Amino acid sequence: MDLNADLGEGFGRWVLTDDEALLSVVTSANVACGFHAGDPATMRQVCEGAVARGVRIGAQVSYRDLAGFGRRAMDVPRAELADELTYQIGALEVFARAAGAGVAYVKPHGALYNRAVHDEQQAAAVVDAVGAFARAYGRELPILGLPGSALLRLAADAGLPTVTEAFADRAYTPAGTLVPRTEPGAVLHDPEAVVAQALAVAVAGEAATADGGRVSVAATSLCLHGDTPGAAALASRVRTALEAAGVRIEAFA
Amino acid sequence: MDLNADLGEGFGRWVLTDDEALLSVVTSANVACGFHAGDPATMRQVCEGAVARGVRIGAQVSYRDLAGFGRRAMDVPRAELADELTYQIGALEVFARAAGAGVAYVKPHGALYNRAVHDEQQAAAVVDAVGAFARAYGRELPILGLPGSALLRLAADAGLPTVTEAFADRAYTPAGTLVPRTEPGAVLHDPEAVVAQALAVAVAGEAATADGGRVSVAATSLCLHGDTPGAAALASRVRTALEAAGVRIEAFA
Amino acid sequence: MDLNADLGEGFGRWVLTDDEALLSVVTSANVACGFHAGDPATMRQVCEGAVARGVRIGAQVSYRDLAGFGRRAMDVPRAELADELTYQIGALEVFARAAGAGVAYVKPHGALYNRAVHDEQQAAAVVDAVGAFARAYGRELPILGLPGSALLRLAADAGLPTVTEAFADRAYTPAGTLVPRTEPGAVLHDPEAVVAQALAVAVAGEAATADGGRVSVAATSLCLHGDTPGAAALASRVRTALEAAGVRIEAFA
Amino acid sequence: MDLNADLGEGFGRWVLTDDEALLSVVTSANVACGFHAGDPATMRQVCEGAVARGVRIGAQVSYRDLAGFGRRAMDVPRAELADELTYQIGALEVFARAAGAGVAYVKPHGALYNRAVHDEQQAAAVVDAVGAFARAYGRELPILGLPGSALLRLAADAGLPTVTEAFADRAYTPAGTLVPRTEPGAVLHDPEAVVAQALAVAVAGEAATADGGRVSVAATSLCLHGDTPGAAALASRVRTALEAAGVRIEAFA
Repeated sequence: MDLNADLGEGFGRWVLTDDEALLSVVTSANVACGFHAGDPATMRQVCEGAVARGVRIGAQVSYRDLAGFGRRAMDVPRAELADELTYQIGALEVFARAAGAGVAYVKPHGALYNRAVHDEQQAAAVVDAVGAFARAYGRELPILGLPGSALLRLAADAGLPTVTEAFADRAYTPAGTLVPRTEPGAVLHDPEAVVAQALAVAVAGEAATADGGRVSVAATSLCLHGDTPGAAALASRVRTALEAAGVRIEAFA
Repeated sequence: MDLNADLGEGFGRWVLTDDEALLSVVTSANVACGFHAGDPATMRQVCEGAVARGVRIGAQVSYRDLAGFGRRAMDVPRAELADELTYQIGALEVFARAAGAGVAYVKPHGALYNRAVHDEQQAAAVVDAVGAFARAYGRELPILGLPGSALLRLAADAGLPTVTEAFADRAYTPAGTLVPRTEPGAVLHDPEAVVAQALAVAVAGEAATADGGRVSVAATSLCLHGDTPGAAALASRVRTALEAAGVRIEAFA
Repeated sequence: MDLNADLGEGFGRWVLTDDEALLSVVTSANVACGFHAGDPATMRQVCEGAVARGVRIGAQVSYRDLAGFGRRAMDVPRAELADELTYQIGALEVFARAAGAGVAYVKPHGALYNRAVHDEQQAAAVVDAVGAFARAYGRELPILGLPGSALLRLAADAGLPTVTEAFADRAYTPAGTLVPRTEPGAVLHDPEAVVAQALAVAVAGEAATADGGRVSVAATSLCLHGDTPGAAALASRVRTALEAAGVRIEAFA
Repeated sequence: MDLNADLGEGFGRWVLTDDEALLSVVTSANVACGFHAGDPATMRQVCEGAVARGVRIGAQVSYRDLAGFGRRAMDVPRAELADELTYQIGALEVFARAAGAGVAYVKPHGALYNRAVHDEQQAAAVVDAVGAFARAYGRELPILGLPGSALLRLAADAGLPTVTEAFADRAYTPAGTLVPRTEPGAVLHDPEAVVAQALAVAVAGEAATADGGRVSVAATSLCLHGDTPGAAALASRVRTALEAAGVRIEAFA
């Protein structure tokens, strides 16, 4: 099982994620690229830290929205959005390379992530950006996303590798989709529940649903959150529990 | 003689430079990278146009200052500035590569250009950024700048290639430096005078001074301005005059 | 008939609208407030010019989106959006007052304008902002908008004055709504057609539709565009034609 | 003795200052106005909280520099800077008024504060902005600054009220100026030392110097910092100590 988390989500004076602590837990770091968070100095530092610990570097691309932290859906035309995302991946690539690695995957952030689940135009823009990067560097970057999303479907259609993820701290519906954040109980706050769900996903490929049932959740990567107090400690606890249960923690192939 | 100009200096809805026209005149395009001007879509388009015409792509890096168009000097610490510049060069590289080329040189913009003439810390930051890019991509980018500047001196000290430039439309002092913009007559507005100075620099390695004398101006590249009305037409006229005088127009080696 | 146009839509180095020329044509100036365009120096200058010519000052409020010129719809929660709009109106008020007047009305810009036609939450945010301004300054600002829009309906429900506008250069459907910009013929480019429509609206309260019919278009203000080449000249021509037809041009009551 | 601190210095998702806790300690709140920090929603909330607790609202104006938190000196021309500062004060005024008060003073932030100590042009820009506000609203806002600074001198020359401040946590030189932050010992980190210095300033009008001596420090306001961990608790401790020593804590006249 791969473990991914968002890193480098501060901006200048503002710090949000405990990057050092998270880098010792995850196998894949979703690095903010400057459009919703992530100043250049932080990008460099996270890349250097990731390489030092053998953590994979992913481009966490976003709408251009510092004030809204990329959480406000925006109607950006496909071509324009593709260029904005390509810019971000390119900016991260130079820091990743200078640190001794390279961008290894792409994961949309926030409102773009959510929108790319259903919106074919915006999902296609992400695929386009990965295509532009491939023309530039000869590498086809995997896209990390939600199983069943338009994004992963279009990526697969374009011949790109895809990686599915599950969430340790989000409630699932009986249909296997995420309970929307606007509904009560959408986010699991109890550490025990988060650890239990991580184990269920990693060991049994299942998650408990709000109505007491179980639903199949197939995922190659498990997303841990890093932007709340205690997040790094909880992430560490999840990893320890997975390892104790015999789950092999390693970056996706 | 190489001819360079600033391109892609619009931002979103705002257009400033006539990129299409300038691309048919210059041999080196200083492409704005998003910090003083230059949105991703424009960067992509300018790169594609440059490659189509065999024009070299340079990273026109700047302070982060859209509101001031990068013309306001900023006290950015060396390490922080280096990261900000590296980010810009990296972002341009992906568009340059996707278009079939790559970033070929770096030229600081506006206040950073002026400050790097004398300020060793900020000049060093430009050199540092080129160093980071070299670690990332294995290419040492030439720096385009003012003869005698701290920037070119530090670049040479670091073993980087340097390219000197002269200005067709700026008045020179008897010492061979530029008349400051705050003084009257600093900028040549008469097209005849601009063409004459371009010829003098390219053919004789000299420029006329305000007091009627002449001063030696050695430069490998001639900077033409593209952000004023009629700029593209004047740039074209300069090129035609240079070619008529037998000057070979080609990108610097 | 009131004539309104967007002014001050440059930003720093970038100029878009010919503010001087437009100020001699319109009776109401929609002044950009810094979120989609409009730097503080320009805001001050437009306010001073407006007061000098007796032109009314309106706050042209927008999403926070310089890169997209406020033309990309954004899902901003109502309370957050209200605060963002209040900020803009407040910033303009100080320049309007220092020039000798005060903000006289509010008109949403771009995507916010379009969204507030149907989206009740975002329309309510505009009304909320006007309410916050009223608590601050004891003045209830009229909202300028599209007849039949959710925005004007909610404003009226809140007891705010409303002002309807028609467009001289937009095609109308038989239902009296605007032909969407994505359809061919949505924007009238022929100056004769623009003048004819302005006259039809102002004199007969009608506009011609694409299918050759006529539709009633009741409006207190006529919107002229100022952000395209020749816009100021066309605006002037419209005003001259209206005056020649005996239409009294004056700011709305 | 007045107690002032910087508040509202987050931006969107990022939180920096514990505004609630600080509002129960200070008598004057320097509210960030959006250019170095401070989103509109936070500005509104801080204004509401300040009015609820009888805390005075000040405009903490800054260079436009979110990425650098306003800590990077910028060469902004006087007229342009004045407009940028006027904009910020105007934006805060609407929230302060809507909450039931009004902006009561102005304090420059970060690099602008430091620069206005010696730079007459930039200090004049602050005075100009206060003048524009006075033309708009008929109120002359006091400027809060360093004793002996160009800023307070120019403000006094312009007939504006001025308020001097001292720092509880900064080391003083024998000349009564602040030890530059680049020197060791410039900032007092020991809570006991901070409390002791606050008492010395408030009771005796003196501060201890690094060489063991004492220097006269006359100030009407004492600046407490709010942007570091434990800052609010330390600020509270300072206030308690001052009150225990019989110092009357109240907003400046």
